[in-house]
Amino acid sequence: MIVWLNGTLIAEPRLDPSDRGFTLGDGLFETIRIVKGHPRHLGQHLDRLVQGCRVLRMPLPYDADTIGQGIVDLLAALGLTEATLRLTLTRGPAPRGLLPPAQPTPTLLMSAAAAAPPAGPTRLIVATVTRRNEHSPLSRLKSLNYLDNILARQEAADRGADDALLLNGQGRVTDTTIATLFARIDGQVVTPPVAEGVLPGIGRSLVLAAGIGSEREIPLDDLRRAKAIVLVNSLGVRPVIALDGESVVSCEALVAALRTACEG
Amino acid sequence: MIVWLNGTLIAEPRLDPSDRGFTLGDGLFETIRIVKGHPRHLGQHLDRLVQGCRVLRMPLPYDADTIGQGIVDLLAALGLTEATLRLTLTRGPAPRGLLPPAQPTPTLLMSAAAAAPPAGPTRLIVATVTRRNEHSPLSRLKSLNYLDNILARQEAADRGADDALLLNGQGRVTDTTIATLFARIDGQVVTPPVAEGVLPGIGRSLVLAAGIGSEREIPLDDLRRAKAIVLVNSLGVRPVIALDGESVVSCEALVAALRTACEG
Repeated sequence: MIVWLNGTLIAEPRLDPSDRGFTLGDGLFETIRIVKGHPRHLGQHLDRLVQGCRVLRMPLPYDADTIGQGIVDLLAALGLTEATLRLTLTRGPAPRGLLPPAQPTPTLLMSAAAAAPPAGPTRLIVATVTRRNEHSPLSRLKSLNYLDNILARQEAADRGADDALLLNGQGRVTDTTIATLFARIDGQVVTPPVAEGVLPGIGRSLVLAAGIGSEREIPLDDLRRAKAIVLVNSLGVRPVIALDGESVVSCEALVAALRTACEG
Repeated sequence: MIVWLNGTLIAEPRLDPSDRGFTLGDGLFETIRIVKGHPRHLGQHLDRLVQGCRVLRMPLPYDADTIGQGIVDLLAALGLTEATLRLTLTRGPAPRGLLPPAQPTPTLLMSAAAAAPPAGPTRLIVATVTRRNEHSPLSRLKSLNYLDNILARQEAADRGADDALLLNGQGRVTDTTIATLFARIDGQVVTPPVAEGVLPGIGRSLVLAAGIGSEREIPLDDLRRAKAIVLVNSLGVRPVIALDGESVVSCEALVAALRTACEG
């Protein structure tokens, strides 16, 4: 499997086990959809990465042009035009200890795989095993600390569902393990504000910029009477058909509107 | 640098970049003090690791004897008798997606370095940048999701301190970025219960088993009037000499008692 690692295409990539991405989850990632050979919304993904680097005080030693060319080269080497690309940035190898080295040597890895078929309608549960931490900046970053999402996704599988919704410490709605949630409640299309412990998703921003929805806190009880629930991430838009086993009304018009906003 | 990786001593170890420890922080670790060539409290460390595996539903494909022999071999290869050993277990390489593979091939890595000189008296701050999530099982596991601790440690450095205390969502005391906290408050030696979002530290268990302290919730205001604060982890016992820049009374007798309980 060929990857792009720190500026070079490599067929048998290997990482230093002292990489802080591996030892401490000290890094960030982006998942980018490739359509007809082009990375969709690359500028927004890189803006979010840079913002995350600022919070973690982690250097990003490659500019947008280098990363863009790396994506072109990687896709060509893999012979892919419809793909899912993952960009992983870590603080790189370091001796033990939590405090980052003064002069880190970051690891930037890009890998790609053929695009999976679009995900279909989703049966959603509300995770009971864990919650999002709205008091942590990590709840608003796409960091490598993904175990809460893994635990929630395992619970979804246990309960015969496709994805799990995470509540925050106040018991209000945040994201699913992989997507932003939009819901029609009392006639309004709403999504929780980032301050609730929500990732500033690229699709989320596009939908809000299109004027389709607005931000408000969503207590779980409100969500249970939603007339439609739709999930959005960089890979697509999907209606929710059940919440904790209860059917959710579908709304094709809303799904179509969100798809247009995200892909348009 | 020689490490023990999946049963073998290797001089130039390299990891698969699809390892879920790297891509998702999907793993656990233990930090074990080596004294006179012997791992201290190895049974307790492995018990905690097994408990963590149960929560994450991650297999541990090596038994205690194999791990113990691996430690002996690694220390011999490195020529170390006083050391800090780190054991890292991840869910291993996998294709993309949050749901773990049905048949994971875990990665178990052990590395060791010469023991650092014992840490001295500690200037502690209360982290403001982030908090511990008592609603997540991860707050009670030594997982690879360490970014909150890194952020808090960076804040400590900014403020001229050595370590940072994390509050939970309720604003009550949990752990520092690397240690369990004991405090003498109103004449009682106390530490927060695990349910507050606290790691069940090995030293913590030994101190409680010795009958020196008891568990109770600790509001931050209570901590500010503590007559002594002492930090305990697998590498040692240290008094706190300042909290947010205010001097903390030291108590040599308490430090000595905790040291005896931990080092036996």
